Amino acid sequence: MRVLVLNCTLKPSPAESNTAALLKIATDELERLGAACEQLRPVDYDLRPGTSSDMGDGDQWPELLERIQGCDILIVGTPIWLGWISSVCQRVLERLDAIFHEEQLRDDETGQYYSYNKVAGIVVTGNEDGAHACQARLAYALTEMGFTLPPNSSAYWVGEAGPGPSYLEAGRDDAYSTRMALTMAANLHYFAELLSKHPIPTRLKDIAERVERMSK
Amino acid sequence: MRVLVLNCTLKPSPAESNTAALLKIATDELERLGAACEQLRPVDYDLRPGTSSDMGDGDQWPELLERIQGCDILIVGTPIWLGWISSVCQRVLERLDAIFHEEQLRDDETGQYYSYNKVAGIVVTGNEDGAHACQARLAYALTEMGFTLPPNSSAYWVGEAGPGPSYLEAGRDDAYSTRMALTMAANLHYFAELLSKHPIPTRLKDIAERVERMSK
Amino acid sequence: MRVLVLNCTLKPSPAESNTAALLKIATDELERLGAACEQLRPVDYDLRPGTSSDMGDGDQWPELLERIQGCDILIVGTPIWLGWISSVCQRVLERLDAIFHEEQLRDDETGQYYSYNKVAGIVVTGNEDGAHACQARLAYALTEMGFTLPPNSSAYWVGEAGPGPSYLEAGRDDAYSTRMALTMAANLHYFAELLSKHPIPTRLKDIAERVERMSK
Amino acid sequence: MRVLVLNCTLKPSPAESNTAALLKIATDELERLGAACEQLRPVDYDLRPGTSSDMGDGDQWPELLERIQGCDILIVGTPIWLGWISSVCQRVLERLDAIFHEEQLRDDETGQYYSYNKVAGIVVTGNEDGAHACQARLAYALTEMGFTLPPNSSAYWVGEAGPGPSYLEAGRDDAYSTRMALTMAANLHYFAELLSKHPIPTRLKDIAERVERMSK
Repeated sequence: MRVLVLNCTLKPSPAESNTAALLKIATDELERLGAACEQLRPVDYDLRPGTSSDMGDGDQWPELLERIQGCDILIVGTPIWLGWISSVCQRVLERLDAIFHEEQLRDDETGQYYSYNKVAGIVVTGNEDGAHACQARLAYALTEMGFTLPPNSSAYWVGEAGPGPSYLEAGRDDAYSTRMALTMAANLHYFAELLSKHPIPTRLKDIAERVERMSK
Repeated sequence: MRVLVLNCTLKPSPAESNTAALLKIATDELERLGAACEQLRPVDYDLRPGTSSDMGDGDQWPELLERIQGCDILIVGTPIWLGWISSVCQRVLERLDAIFHEEQLRDDETGQYYSYNKVAGIVVTGNEDGAHACQARLAYALTEMGFTLPPNSSAYWVGEAGPGPSYLEAGRDDAYSTRMALTMAANLHYFAELLSKHPIPTRLKDIAERVERMSK
Repeated sequence: MRVLVLNCTLKPSPAESNTAALLKIATDELERLGAACEQLRPVDYDLRPGTSSDMGDGDQWPELLERIQGCDILIVGTPIWLGWISSVCQRVLERLDAIFHEEQLRDDETGQYYSYNKVAGIVVTGNEDGAHACQARLAYALTEMGFTLPPNSSAYWVGEAGPGPSYLEAGRDDAYSTRMALTMAANLHYFAELLSKHPIPTRLKDIAERVERMSK
Repeated sequence: MRVLVLNCTLKPSPAESNTAALLKIATDELERLGAACEQLRPVDYDLRPGTSSDMGDGDQWPELLERIQGCDILIVGTPIWLGWISSVCQRVLERLDAIFHEEQLRDDETGQYYSYNKVAGIVVTGNEDGAHACQARLAYALTEMGFTLPPNSSAYWVGEAGPGPSYLEAGRDDAYSTRMALTMAANLHYFAELLSKHPIPTRLKDIAERVERMSK
């Protein structure tokens, strides 16, 4: 089972990342369960603005896309800035958006998105507020793009209102956030296995015909 | 397979509801697939403000909660007002919130939420804007409360910017929204069957012990 | 100068309210500056679901609307439930929505909304997360409905991720939140005075004519 | 009166931009009222990820920041991607965030943000949904960062649910969006003049002292 983690921090490697610290609890658990985890920071790549799978001219999104297409579990991690997902995370979503309009991102035979039968997890850290809004925004985008969301498949940490310590500064000993990360790992793992054994049947053609009949 | 639909329109029965019209496409399909669908409007019930499962004094939430606990698939439908879910829909979420702090809403043996192994769908209608925000808000709340979100498990309709026709006035012939509703029905059905045969294992005790060890 | 505070807590009077406690810092300051403050809890009123100014049949919204129309400064306070504004607060927004479609809510001569030349403030409390999303949702709705938003015209308090003390339990001594509440009071007061002396000119007719000409 | 427009489209100049087209209605009107408008696309600049005012190493944010500090009216325009503001727009907000923690962004004497006495407008375009969520997100961020939001200071256009024509393809003749853009221009202009004549008094020191006394 292959897990891909996209840590959408604003800080290029190898700078310390709070989001990486919370992600690690989840990936350690996934590895304990037998999964192979790869973690990347999209900010380390030159991801051009746009909504096609390849914007050309040195665009490095195709490298990331290939890894996303090859994984069973995708975990998106983001810091919170002004209450929302980072610009790097939004850039990743914009690039994933090609799934809605590019045929090569669909199965040759069935026409289904490549994301079907993949599961998704969400990790958010910030120093004061905004986690639920980020989780909501990512939960919506990921299911809309074809990923499955198991129950309790996200984890977060935020501090009190106002300036204050970050997750690492606060000591990383938050039992609540740790429990969320472990529960997320367990449920992602179970659903990935389940979908590998029982893939979602594609009813696209049947549905297209039904829609055509209904609109007459 | 039992489907419960909560149509969170502001209009008491039997007033015409745009959300009901889009919901019907999904429930017709679920019934064709063999499921039994029950549709309710929470606005027809006296749902007291609060976050306990029973606010007493004639509170009718317990009736709805019993039905939610008995279903395999929960579909929440909401109109959009000022860009967000209706006050009736928010009231439903507030009442569901008891799942986080009331022991009787968990399994006696395992301690797991009653919502595990249930799947959730989302339907949103409005006359100009706000569907994605409502879908995001509901997707987050429902997975956080233990429901599973299959891919493409929501459907919506909105018109152009500004005042304009509602879903029913526009003729209900929107092929895009119809396709979303049918896809949602198919995926909800598949996942509900899958989870009835392969229920999610509860790892709560194991995780609690692990967290305790990690925090030492 | 008349200040109306709508505390959208789920708890009917006289139950203790965290939101009331943070609101009090702002209203004490406004009274010190000479304003007269009235505070209400919409949950104490029977506010029928709907988007007209009077839903009839015992609907008590008209009483609240009259007070809103009579104030110079409107402060909306809300607790956070599942990351968003309370159902009571959303109900208030839905009822305010009538401003967009009812002629009697506009000035007889100019056609301008009654809300023009009124300023709005926002107060949010919760025990872990969601303040910014609530502030955003309210900021948008209030300016769209014709209120002016001075800079730093909102204040909030949230605790750390996970279950934890509420604002009052945490001791109410948060200097950051107090500073926000006082800044909000100062700016609301300044802008209310400014607009009472220099009311916004209505250019509705001129704009309507210009739009007509442009669309030809 | 100087107006700065940041069009946060994903498309570098001189590609056609729907957001630019709606922005033009507002800036034409502002110019008619005597203001001088400058329009930029942040995507044309190398804006490094981070939250300091100068990330060094060729970072071009300082050029934009200087222009923002010099304007009286700031209008932020964004397209909608997956229901939210563009990654370019979120990058701009992240860079503006320095206002909260960098002393050189405050007045030497009073300590007030450079943004006080500036007013802000918002323009959003998309082909199906998400405008209100973008307007809310920007309204919150801009007032929190010290800008004033006049009533009806935003304008948007979205098409029906599903793939469909963009603003320009739809013919740009939407009277509703045009009316919003003209109203926004009128109100921005009035408030900018008002604040230039009656600047907001700074009560920071007084408030800081009061907070200190209250927390004792």
